[in-house]
Amino acid sequence: MKATVYAGNKTFSVVEKEIEAPVAGDVRIKVAYCGVCGTDVHIYHGMMDKRVQIPQIIGHEMSGIIDAVGDGVTDFKVGDKITVRPLDNRGEVDSDKGYSHIAKKLKFIGIDSPGAMQQYWNVPAFTLHKLKESTDLKLAALIEPLSVACHDVRRGGLKAGETAVVSGGGPIGLLVALVARSKGANVIISEVNDIRVKMAEGMGFDVVNPMKNNLVEYVDKKTNGALADVVFEVAGVQASLDITTEVVGIRGRIVLVAIYGEAKPVNLFKFFWKELTLIGARVYEKEDYEESIQLITENKYPFERIITDTKPLDQIQQLFESIDTTPEGMKFLVDCQ
Amino acid sequence: MKATVYAGNKTFSVVEKEIEAPVAGDVRIKVAYCGVCGTDVHIYHGMMDKRVQIPQIIGHEMSGIIDAVGDGVTDFKVGDKITVRPLDNRGEVDSDKGYSHIAKKLKFIGIDSPGAMQQYWNVPAFTLHKLKESTDLKLAALIEPLSVACHDVRRGGLKAGETAVVSGGGPIGLLVALVARSKGANVIISEVNDIRVKMAEGMGFDVVNPMKNNLVEYVDKKTNGALADVVFEVAGVQASLDITTEVVGIRGRIVLVAIYGEAKPVNLFKFFWKELTLIGARVYEKEDYEESIQLITENKYPFERIITDTKPLDQIQQLFESIDTTPEGMKFLVDCQ
Repeated sequence: MKATVYAGNKTFSVVEKEIEAPVAGDVRIKVAYCGVCGTDVHIYHGMMDKRVQIPQIIGHEMSGIIDAVGDGVTDFKVGDKITVRPLDNRGEVDSDKGYSHIAKKLKFIGIDSPGAMQQYWNVPAFTLHKLKESTDLKLAALIEPLSVACHDVRRGGLKAGETAVVSGGGPIGLLVALVARSKGANVIISEVNDIRVKMAEGMGFDVVNPMKNNLVEYVDKKTNGALADVVFEVAGVQASLDITTEVVGIRGRIVLVAIYGEAKPVNLFKFFWKELTLIGARVYEKEDYEESIQLITENKYPFERIITDTKPLDQIQQLFESIDTTPEGMKFLVDCQ
Repeated sequence: MKATVYAGNKTFSVVEKEIEAPVAGDVRIKVAYCGVCGTDVHIYHGMMDKRVQIPQIIGHEMSGIIDAVGDGVTDFKVGDKITVRPLDNRGEVDSDKGYSHIAKKLKFIGIDSPGAMQQYWNVPAFTLHKLKESTDLKLAALIEPLSVACHDVRRGGLKAGETAVVSGGGPIGLLVALVARSKGANVIISEVNDIRVKMAEGMGFDVVNPMKNNLVEYVDKKTNGALADVVFEVAGVQASLDITTEVVGIRGRIVLVAIYGEAKPVNLFKFFWKELTLIGARVYEKEDYEESIQLITENKYPFERIITDTKPLDQIQQLFESIDTTPEGMKFLVDCQ
């Protein structure tokens, strides 16, 4: 079988590997598609060389079909369409308070252990979620990032009729916006890139370019002065962070979707004045996967538009290079079949 | 009657004033005691001269007895012991979303309009909370700041058996700690001033001086690695703010009790990694007052130790001067009788 290997220094190689039998408790998956996460791009850029054991097979946004089951696996059978929730919480302890998905010794499969950018992938059965026969396997590669969006929206407690501002219209921003729409919220996306603005508008969203228009005034007018109930900070830049505390109204919630590597100035006076809440969010829980699978299976929203390009396994190097030269691109998939 | 007037430039004067009949909807209160809030000290220091209309009678942490009722006041009668919730929300609009206590056009009685540091005070009846006959009027001057603490603890969602760290052992910190204790939480106070450390210890609290001991290690050991469930940031200094994200465990809540006038660096990575929540809190709601009144009336906790000194109305200048020269002091009261 073919596998791709991140070899350091912005280089992937495609190698031949033996197909392995699954050990007890594991299954072997014939991988269908694997999406490229922002984290995978970070790895490719060498930003995570301390954490990733080079050479390593990466990738965790996947879909596939069970090809073999190890001893003791009873809930899944050969032929099942599945996706993987790539969280290995076997090191969980009491002081993690039951929050398995962010346990202190959590291992992320596809970063801390081999991932899905290969033809066959062996994983523990406890990571699996079954898909319907009708689920499209290409769209199903979006289940993992869509679960992130479901988790973000759930952490923000967004309800029908509320106004949500999504600051940043990249792939995760659009998925957050689609999940927010599925909750019955009024969604406004803030995005500076013209191509992304057009794309978001094409998906029926109300979009403001904050470099061209005053976002706070726009939201103020739309909401008769109430401003946003929830803001999702997806852009990960100071200007976006700064606007979150301005664009939410009284008792507003700000969900941090972007990852900030270092301390950043936050307008704490507004937290006092409007009794705001800042909510951290990381990966997803089981129920987020279930919601995401249902959304992808029902396919009522234009998820397929998120997919910018799909390339076969043996063109993985070109795929990652094209991501760097397509800043307005959304989601890139590897076809592992 | 006597009234005290903030005349600007760190000066109070004591003046003679006519006793006024209450207008329709108002009551006249014979003021018993009025505590000095941190805000009153700010006013005295000239920090709020733009907001306060000089000359102004200030003060809002009070207790008293109804002396006369205006037309249309039916829920209160002469002789009732009362305290005032000094929030005038008559400018509330729909876009305040029902959060009357932080309505955009909220007026704070005693800052934006005349306050309680006088012998008789006329206020709208809707601001009143009735006290029991048995309620001590001196302790009752603590109801307003204790309501702040009740609100902070409620915003933090603190539950019995949880571990709370209170960073800052001044008057509000101690009140927060007492309310946290009343909820059945395990409370650890962090305080750098030796006199305040001793005072908190004398009230039965577990106290750490973070300049002398490692607070995070201490809490880690006490909680078997789970760290704090809720941290109350009362100190209002960067070192305290920085430690909040370290000393809380997974899904920890950080309640901002101190008021930060400008943007401050916050470790947002920890918000992501541990899924933290930062919660803004401002003043109080009706239910916080009710809880606070019950606590003061039951008098099961050593609230009286918070009171550092009480001086009569005509010594108000000396009282404010002594606050400046007693940095470890807690709550100072004006006896308005």
